[in-house]
Amino acid sequence: MDYVAPSAEQILALHVSAGIEELAAHQRFAAADAELVGAIVEGIGAFAAGEWAPLNRVGDTEGAVARGGEVSLPAGFREAYAAYVEQGWNAIAGPTAFGGQGLPFALACCVLENLGAANMAFTLLPMLTVGAIEALDHHGSDAQKALYLEKLVSGAWSGTMNLTEPQAGSDVGALRATATPITEGPHAGKHRIKATKIFITWGEHDLAENIIHLVLARTPGAPAGSRGVSLFVVPKYHVEADGSLGARNDVRVVSIEHKLGIHASPTCVMSFGDDDDCIGELVGPEHGGLRAMFTMMNSARINIGSQGVQIAQAALQQAMAYARDRVQSVRAGAADRTPVAIIEHPDVRRMLLRMRGLTEGARALLYYTAGQVDRGSLGQAGAAARADLLVPILKAWATDIGCEVASLGIQIHGGIGYVEETGAAQYYRDARIAPIYEGTNGIQAADLVTRKLAMEGGAVLAALMAQIGADCAEEANLAALASECAAIGVWMRTEGSLDDRLAGSVPFLTMCAVAVAGWQLLLQSRAVRGAQGSIAQTKPIVARWFLDHLVPEAMGHAAAARGGYALLAGLNAELLAS
Amino acid sequence: MDYVAPSAEQILALHVSAGIEELAAHQRFAAADAELVGAIVEGIGAFAAGEWAPLNRVGDTEGAVARGGEVSLPAGFREAYAAYVEQGWNAIAGPTAFGGQGLPFALACCVLENLGAANMAFTLLPMLTVGAIEALDHHGSDAQKALYLEKLVSGAWSGTMNLTEPQAGSDVGALRATATPITEGPHAGKHRIKATKIFITWGEHDLAENIIHLVLARTPGAPAGSRGVSLFVVPKYHVEADGSLGARNDVRVVSIEHKLGIHASPTCVMSFGDDDDCIGELVGPEHGGLRAMFTMMNSARINIGSQGVQIAQAALQQAMAYARDRVQSVRAGAADRTPVAIIEHPDVRRMLLRMRGLTEGARALLYYTAGQVDRGSLGQAGAAARADLLVPILKAWATDIGCEVASLGIQIHGGIGYVEETGAAQYYRDARIAPIYEGTNGIQAADLVTRKLAMEGGAVLAALMAQIGADCAEEANLAALASECAAIGVWMRTEGSLDDRLAGSVPFLTMCAVAVAGWQLLLQSRAVRGAQGSIAQTKPIVARWFLDHLVPEAMGHAAAARGGYALLAGLNAELLAS
Repeated sequence: MDYVAPSAEQILALHVSAGIEELAAHQRFAAADAELVGAIVEGIGAFAAGEWAPLNRVGDTEGAVARGGEVSLPAGFREAYAAYVEQGWNAIAGPTAFGGQGLPFALACCVLENLGAANMAFTLLPMLTVGAIEALDHHGSDAQKALYLEKLVSGAWSGTMNLTEPQAGSDVGALRATATPITEGPHAGKHRIKATKIFITWGEHDLAENIIHLVLARTPGAPAGSRGVSLFVVPKYHVEADGSLGARNDVRVVSIEHKLGIHASPTCVMSFGDDDDCIGELVGPEHGGLRAMFTMMNSARINIGSQGVQIAQAALQQAMAYARDRVQSVRAGAADRTPVAIIEHPDVRRMLLRMRGLTEGARALLYYTAGQVDRGSLGQAGAAARADLLVPILKAWATDIGCEVASLGIQIHGGIGYVEETGAAQYYRDARIAPIYEGTNGIQAADLVTRKLAMEGGAVLAALMAQIGADCAEEANLAALASECAAIGVWMRTEGSLDDRLAGSVPFLTMCAVAVAGWQLLLQSRAVRGAQGSIAQTKPIVARWFLDHLVPEAMGHAAAARGGYALLAGLNAELLAS
Repeated sequence: MDYVAPSAEQILALHVSAGIEELAAHQRFAAADAELVGAIVEGIGAFAAGEWAPLNRVGDTEGAVARGGEVSLPAGFREAYAAYVEQGWNAIAGPTAFGGQGLPFALACCVLENLGAANMAFTLLPMLTVGAIEALDHHGSDAQKALYLEKLVSGAWSGTMNLTEPQAGSDVGALRATATPITEGPHAGKHRIKATKIFITWGEHDLAENIIHLVLARTPGAPAGSRGVSLFVVPKYHVEADGSLGARNDVRVVSIEHKLGIHASPTCVMSFGDDDDCIGELVGPEHGGLRAMFTMMNSARINIGSQGVQIAQAALQQAMAYARDRVQSVRAGAADRTPVAIIEHPDVRRMLLRMRGLTEGARALLYYTAGQVDRGSLGQAGAAARADLLVPILKAWATDIGCEVASLGIQIHGGIGYVEETGAAQYYRDARIAPIYEGTNGIQAADLVTRKLAMEGGAVLAALMAQIGADCAEEANLAALASECAAIGVWMRTEGSLDDRLAGSVPFLTMCAVAVAGWQLLLQSRAVRGAQGSIAQTKPIVARWFLDHLVPEAMGHAAAARGGYALLAGLNAELLAS
């Protein structure tokens, strides 16, 4: 169906939750004034609706096709990607030294949010390129930056991340790819790469002129585990010193996966060095691969969290339109026996309000997190740590609610929602990957209760929850939730064993997410007081639903968060699987 | 993957929750002694695993195919269905006068549970036949029973229910199908049917010798709405007085839907009377169609609730097997740096225990409900009303948890769970229909807070919750939940408006379901004390998880259940969809 960008919602979130005006007060982001922000939000919304949304369904039904070492997309994708590059959307937050606009990350989030709501599978292509840009910008040599960044920033070339191998999924350190130094010949100083990588998103395709693969591999004698991993840049086509494309490198797609959803995103099995002629170049120091990965991880996880918002928004729009159009049954208790649009039935409204509450809550959390990233990059005290704390919370919760909202979208359609032609089912299928990739949500929760909870002796979480409590003293539910989150944090750090923390990590993460999202919705609701437009009427109701219904629901997870490991320990693997 | 029937779980549920021994103490069910129960549970488990499970994947990938007015299934379905009929599994609870064994409904539930866990889409075929048997057995004339029941009971013929039309989904009364009396000729006394029906499950196929369609239609001058609907029996092939098959009736499949899941179940658009020669016969009194529908509804809804258990069981088995096999990452905090099977990671265990708790809780609720149906059919005081109360609770909650467990099943697999070949995704897709058909879960919840809550002035719910409270006085969480369910029931009946009740209906239903399921798990847990086998070790832990984690989570829905309609009313349709 048609995509209509939620521009007013996005501008409010940029304003209140990302604090874009404060960012624009800094020299570096001075360009991000209200006018430019408005132009970007409206512009990318229109672009996404006009160019990418029409390809969403055909991307699902036809999907990416691998044939003879080439991967092609349905008609229209090439043109739509070319338009995206030409209009400069890829360069919003890219480094200015290489053609980027250097605008706040929060604005880049808005670009991806619109593109992904219009076409989630397609949007993985620019999303992966962001990772390559960050890795090279932070860890590459000047020569590497000069060679690759401009084309990546514009989007003329795309990027990939090659981590996973069959035996090395969540455990990246288990990877076996090798990189052997080349000591002579034209490639002296570079490495010969030998690897089979799986689950490589957009690993091969024909939309960009070149594909810059970033590959994790081991050099000879490297330590075992993740400390022995190095990062290499492996272009599909070699790049000559003058920037022109040379011969094809020895890297090829073996096959693409037949997946539940995101059919337009080719998920590739990639083979590097079948002919012993795959040339890669070390990025950053040897054995520094994991650090480079961490650089990319924060924004990648935020961008996957954004996918939850994207798919929720798309599912919400379709369900709202259907609920207004579909006439079925008389209104319960009404004297008038004329059937009404189903949006008038209380439980359909409940589902729609829940969909809205979850979607807007997740968006609020997304932009709040993005704003903290931007503050961190400006050196604002505490912001980087707060962003680090929020990243796993956002990634996991937003992708969870993406699945829930897509499921509610089907439910609102009734039987027709189960029929593929309607499109509601695609959202349900597409959404399901987001809780898995870029670190499963269980891994996000583990990150929260180990590394992130330990930051500054627990003070990062404590400060956040204290701020929420202070901002919403009159909101008893939310104040209680923030206080309980803080208390569980203390319990986990001081009393709970590592196993106790891990056992309660997912319910705890959900509680934290709802606390932050509820807080930001409350602030957004306060900000629209007296404003014009429907958002001034809807936001207070959506926020109220969130605080009065969802926050108590999140409190219901406290018992599980504090439940500890003892029950799980009682079942050995044999019994548990009996 | 291979299906292994959870026979010990089923026998425990039949014993404790359905109370099969008490049922066998009655003359009518005397045959259902422990030996026969054991033989049926083991027998159908082996049959489902051996004959139906191997067809689950091909049923998904190839699916039902419509071509030239015929619908065919992949190779193997004919033989598997024939074996099912030949071994007599279809006749377990059928009326003895027509070849049925007349055993308790709870045992028929066990048959369907196994078949459906092995192959959910296939099992819709016998499930629909049950509905036709019930309609004819309760409302058909002696001649109709003689003509149709024996073949339906054996399964040689299958049945369908034809309610839905494009404009008449949840609102059955909006249907426009017509039935015109035939006054002369060989079909005098019968009706000429003209109808287009959609979403007709197994409406056409080649596995049974004949298909007996039950069709809702309006006779000339019938009152508007559901009170003017009559039920007709419309065989695919006319049946001669001697029971032999005659000419083909004027009914045909137009197309089948392209659905998210259950691909082996042909969901048909059916056309009756294209050549004005579709002959049907009235079943029961004219305008009595809705009553006949209600007859079928209880067991049909229970059987759909069972689908939640089925898909949860299937997803659980696959996830448990994967979690034991898949080695990834070292155990957090362990000195030994050898990677372990992921079942050893606390959050994977949490997911598995949650899957088990939800699955076993839903099964307990299923068999408890089935046992109440059987008691009701024996005339035991209060049982029929309690069954009526439980039906919407079971249907909605069990199908909800079916989706959740299937989703957790994907999550445990990680990236490979998103790849279709693994099979985890099929469960996720198949499961999603169950909250929709046979009355959406919203309609179940509406039934609960209107008709069912009003029964005996609220006493049916109150008595159930009081019994739970009495049985688990020492379980503070569960006692509190039962008490809160009772209190919300009172609030809804005495203070809440109809809209308030409807607005809180779904969260209230979830709370009631968790209370009953938790109670039954507790009783099952008590029953295995001192018993042999792994169930004596696992059940107490699963029940403890349910009481300590899931019951508090359900309490978190109380605010929403009591939240009322005011918030929803604040958004008119225009704003809500803005």
